[in-house]
Amino acid sequence: MPSDEAQIRELVSAWMKATKEKDPDAVLRLMTDDARFLVAGRPPFGKDVFEKGARSQAADDAPSYDATSDIQEIHVEGSMAYAISALTLLITPKDGSPASKRAGHTLTIFRKVDGQWLLARDANLLFPPAKPSNA
Amino acid sequence: MPSDEAQIRELVSAWMKATKEKDPDAVLRLMTDDARFLVAGRPPFGKDVFEKGARSQAADDAPSYDATSDIQEIHVEGSMAYAISALTLLITPKDGSPASKRAGHTLTIFRKVDGQWLLARDANLLFPPAKPSNA
Repeated sequence: MPSDEAQIRELVSAWMKATKEKDPDAVLRLMTDDARFLVAGRPPFGKDVFEKGARSQAADDAPSYDATSDIQEIHVEGSMAYAISALTLLITPKDGSPASKRAGHTLTIFRKVDGQWLLARDANLLFPPAKPSNA
Repeated sequence: MPSDEAQIRELVSAWMKATKEKDPDAVLRLMTDDARFLVAGRPPFGKDVFEKGARSQAADDAPSYDATSDIQEIHVEGSMAYAISALTLLITPKDGSPASKRAGHTLTIFRKVDGQWLLARDANLLFPPAKPSNA
C-alpha cells in the first residue's frame, strides 16, 4: 500500500491528466461532494459550478489545457492533509491564436473518504486569475 | 476550556485586532515559525518577509488597515484545522487621500502547538491582490 503522501501525489497526477485529456467525469471523481474552490475575484464555488466549467472546457472547440503541478509540500494528519503546489497552466486556443500561460501556487486540502484521498478545498492563486474550471 | 473551534475564532479575532492596532509583535506570536503565506502574483513567503511588511505598515505615516474576517467554515482534525473566511480590508492613507477597499476569501491552515492554535498556512485571495502583510 503506498503511503498517504504517495496516494495524494497520485491523485494530483490523475487530476492533471484528466484535465489535459478533457475528461470531466474523471476529475469529478477525484473530489469530495462538498468540495469548495477559491479563486480571486469571485466567491468560493462548489462541485456543481466546477462541473459546469469543466464540461464547457471539454467541448471540441474549447482551448486545450495543459497543467503542471509541482508539489512543494504535503502534510498529513489522520484523514486530512494539505499541500502547497506550484501550478502552471498553458492554454492553447483551437483557432490558432497564441497560447497563453498562467502560473501561481495552490493551497489544497485533501480528505480521506472510505480509504481514498480526495480533493476537498482548493485555493488557486493563478495569476492572472483563472476561470473556475482551470483549477 | 473553549472548544478548538472557539480557540481558532479567538485567534482570528486577535489577529485582526493586532493588525488594526499596528502591533506586529502580537501578530507574529499568532503564527508558527514555519508559517507560509500565499498571495497572487508572487511566490509563497515566510514569517521573515511577513514581519518586514508588518513592521513597515506599523510606521506612523503608513495607512491604517482595518480588516474584518467572517469565518464561514472551520474543520478541525486532531492538531490541524482549516478555515475559509470572507475577508475585507479597508486601507485609509494618512495623507487624506481616499480609502480603498479590498475583498476576497482566505483558506487558512491552523496547527496546535503546545496547546495553542497558531496560523500555519494562509492563501489570501484578496482582490485586487494585496501586499504580503495585509494578510
